[in-house]
Amino acid sequence: MVFELNRAGAAAPLYEQIKQRISEMIEGGSLRPGDRLAATRDLARDLAVNRNTVVKAYEELEIDGLVRSGVGQGTFVAEFARPAGRPRPEPRPATAEFEGLWARAAADPESMEFSELFFRVSNLHKQGVTALSSCMPDKALFPMLEFRNCAYYALQNWGADLLDIGVTQGFVPLLEQLPRYLLRHGLSVEPNHLVMTSGIQQGIDLVARALVNPGDVVVTEEFTYPRAISVLRAAGAELLGIPLDGDGMKVEVLEQVLARRRAKLIYTIPSFQNPTGTTLSEERRRRLLELSALHKIPILEDHYANDLRVEGPAPLPLAAMDRQGWVIAVGSLSKVLFHGLRLGWIITPLEAVRRRLISLKQNADLQTSYLTQGIVLEFMRRGYLEKYLKRRLAQVRARRQAVRQALTDYMPEGCWWYEVAGGVCYWLNLPPPVRADELLLEARKRGIVFTPKHLFSVKPSLNDALRLGFTDLEEDRARNGLRLLGQLVRRLQSGSRPPPVEATEYARVHV
Amino acid sequence: MVFELNRAGAAAPLYEQIKQRISEMIEGGSLRPGDRLAATRDLARDLAVNRNTVVKAYEELEIDGLVRSGVGQGTFVAEFARPAGRPRPEPRPATAEFEGLWARAAADPESMEFSELFFRVSNLHKQGVTALSSCMPDKALFPMLEFRNCAYYALQNWGADLLDIGVTQGFVPLLEQLPRYLLRHGLSVEPNHLVMTSGIQQGIDLVARALVNPGDVVVTEEFTYPRAISVLRAAGAELLGIPLDGDGMKVEVLEQVLARRRAKLIYTIPSFQNPTGTTLSEERRRRLLELSALHKIPILEDHYANDLRVEGPAPLPLAAMDRQGWVIAVGSLSKVLFHGLRLGWIITPLEAVRRRLISLKQNADLQTSYLTQGIVLEFMRRGYLEKYLKRRLAQVRARRQAVRQALTDYMPEGCWWYEVAGGVCYWLNLPPPVRADELLLEARKRGIVFTPKHLFSVKPSLNDALRLGFTDLEEDRARNGLRLLGQLVRRLQSGSRPPPVEATEYARVHV
Repeated sequence: MVFELNRAGAAAPLYEQIKQRISEMIEGGSLRPGDRLAATRDLARDLAVNRNTVVKAYEELEIDGLVRSGVGQGTFVAEFARPAGRPRPEPRPATAEFEGLWARAAADPESMEFSELFFRVSNLHKQGVTALSSCMPDKALFPMLEFRNCAYYALQNWGADLLDIGVTQGFVPLLEQLPRYLLRHGLSVEPNHLVMTSGIQQGIDLVARALVNPGDVVVTEEFTYPRAISVLRAAGAELLGIPLDGDGMKVEVLEQVLARRRAKLIYTIPSFQNPTGTTLSEERRRRLLELSALHKIPILEDHYANDLRVEGPAPLPLAAMDRQGWVIAVGSLSKVLFHGLRLGWIITPLEAVRRRLISLKQNADLQTSYLTQGIVLEFMRRGYLEKYLKRRLAQVRARRQAVRQALTDYMPEGCWWYEVAGGVCYWLNLPPPVRADELLLEARKRGIVFTPKHLFSVKPSLNDALRLGFTDLEEDRARNGLRLLGQLVRRLQSGSRPPPVEATEYARVHV
Repeated sequence: MVFELNRAGAAAPLYEQIKQRISEMIEGGSLRPGDRLAATRDLARDLAVNRNTVVKAYEELEIDGLVRSGVGQGTFVAEFARPAGRPRPEPRPATAEFEGLWARAAADPESMEFSELFFRVSNLHKQGVTALSSCMPDKALFPMLEFRNCAYYALQNWGADLLDIGVTQGFVPLLEQLPRYLLRHGLSVEPNHLVMTSGIQQGIDLVARALVNPGDVVVTEEFTYPRAISVLRAAGAELLGIPLDGDGMKVEVLEQVLARRRAKLIYTIPSFQNPTGTTLSEERRRRLLELSALHKIPILEDHYANDLRVEGPAPLPLAAMDRQGWVIAVGSLSKVLFHGLRLGWIITPLEAVRRRLISLKQNADLQTSYLTQGIVLEFMRRGYLEKYLKRRLAQVRARRQAVRQALTDYMPEGCWWYEVAGGVCYWLNLPPPVRADELLLEARKRGIVFTPKHLFSVKPSLNDALRLGFTDLEEDRARNGLRLLGQLVRRLQSGSRPPPVEATEYARVHV
């Protein structure tokens, strides 16, 4: 097994060359499964390199699955590196046909298309488009250094407890810390009232699994979080969308609806409603709780952006006003800290509800990563979360202000929007005959994307509004984007086609 | 706001005393929401302490949610630290009544009881019992230092990419690395054939959601992984348990069953079957694949312990033999690395299947933590996984050997068990009239627990067997436990009651 190494200055490192040559011999069949590689000492001598160089090459080959080594036994070509006796699976196209086998929950092609759309929008966001579609935190602000240190310290403090299986409900020290954080919203939560989840998404999914049978009616705002729509639909719910105005869901309409129809669950986002940005008034909150208790309908309250208030006093969450336990709240740090953390919680004071949610969570994934829970706990305990939240809020305040001003400056007569006191988005209503999909078609040619109304609608409706996320885009880019968007609206409003533009890279992405 | 500090050597640190006193003033109402705390400089002067001492006290009060500070604005008592104007939620017992509202999937009290049992068994394991119930990795062997470093380096290398939202399918660099690891099993997996999940548990749940409608028949081994039973039952499946012997599922029986009944899915654990430890023979594997293709029934193949073979050659996984795509495989590192990682994967070559699973995963939790994925990738790339696996296998080999020898030495005539070539457990069949629950009752009084047959049974059957996990218990303790167990079996076999013992702490845990 001797070959020549290239010792020129520009050549690949020697261990890589050795690795490469041995890989080739395995691929080419001159080394076969079970063959023993030369002892590191011998090969090092033959090649006139340091023995560690050969050891490193062998280690990397093992990481690549091509060789196996045993203590004191030497190093051998791995069994499946090039199967000799056994048939090697051919890269033949699989032919199995699953049509007709899908469960009802997985049979909805619309939901799948939505998923793929979701991907594309996420990607656009990373390609430098003016992504008014994003409602995520700006990752340039992420406190990476602090978080990295917390990862290290959390593992140092709690060690194996963060990697072992634990109590499904959550990592107990975090269950004890979190209520102090939630105090800011007026929530008096006992540690035992929490169930940690893999984000709000899982919270919604678990509650849907606990309460929704196919055919059940679930009440939501008329426009709402698309992935909640998709979870509830997958559970077989019939969705009833209640109209809203600047004060959130029109609870008086809900009252009329409930007089006629039995509902199983009310899903609501009372603060910084997604996508309209509206906040349910205190009066309506009280009435909503009365209706829930009167008709015995649980409320699933989504706190996704409660932390992002930048103006005025916050009304109490329904979960804080509720005295009976009809409210099940879901929250997370995704809009404050990192969207990819996948750490959220469910709050419910009722043991009967918690027991079922915990049992369903065990079926779903046994537990949410204790590692993540431990790191976030460390992040809280060291005061990093408080400090970071202040920086985030300052950014949200400035960006909301820029978008608000740009809307006033650039949107033509006939456009209107709800005022928002924080959160992540504005909801822009378009004047007739402008349609959000048509506008998007033109906007994306110019490198601007937003999220059109129909993705949020629980029932078919005129596609005459759109969501503008403001948290992830710096002020100048948002203003420039909105100026251009205003011009496009004006053109479409007057019936004249916008002038053709050279399609940008983004234009070819079908949003 | 002046108080006295205790400066005696044994007293609490000064910042803690300050924090404590201010907390008390807030609790007692002498400081009210909105009140401004003394400037740090002033309080430091009044108390004759360093200003940083006061700063630290204020910061901790903020982490506890009792005060809020703004840059340049000073520090104030938080709004909800002691709500004055608003009613504070009383710790009144919640009265909402959810009976009659549960969805079918959540209505099964048996499943809930199982969950709670699961907790108790997990806890026992931590209380120092001779827990032959545990099949987890021994956490004393966890490579904590390496893992901690990987957490640090992964965040250094990939930074915000690990914390931002990403592609649901998985963190791309891990999707590219994992196939090299899987090569050892003879699996030729393309990165794009993988969907990363929050453990095997989520893989099973997603496949069940994709394929199982209420009333569908799902085939399993007669005894199988309890949490798969619970997921499939929650999906409404009718479970058909196929008998097994030392070579795994009796595929000839399956053949007869499928001649009469239409099944929607076959869930199988062909290697180190949980709980019996048996491995499906190559001949039966081939026949199983033929039946699956003939009847167009997808197979869900569980690879939970494939890495833990310590003897003899491994038969190819069904997923490696399958040419058509009927096999959907689920795997993880939970039995190799850490049980609490919650990182697993689904393997399927069919795009139609992946699209649905990805869409369902988005509904479930958007994505599995990229942080975990990045750390594990780092752990693989640095060769730590290969090194650790060797240590794990040496431990599994020794512990299996100890349990095997102890079974031979201590179990009375009439007991029998399947030989196992690795994995995590032995399946001990008891001679009549000994019953596993009766035996457990006596065993746990003596600080020994195991898992009785009925927890694994898909249909009612005589409770005359039990699972002995051998991976988590050092050899001496396992041997001692089994000696005692053998004595108890002998007593119960002869019809004589074991002598009464003083109930230990563990005895009071109802297993």
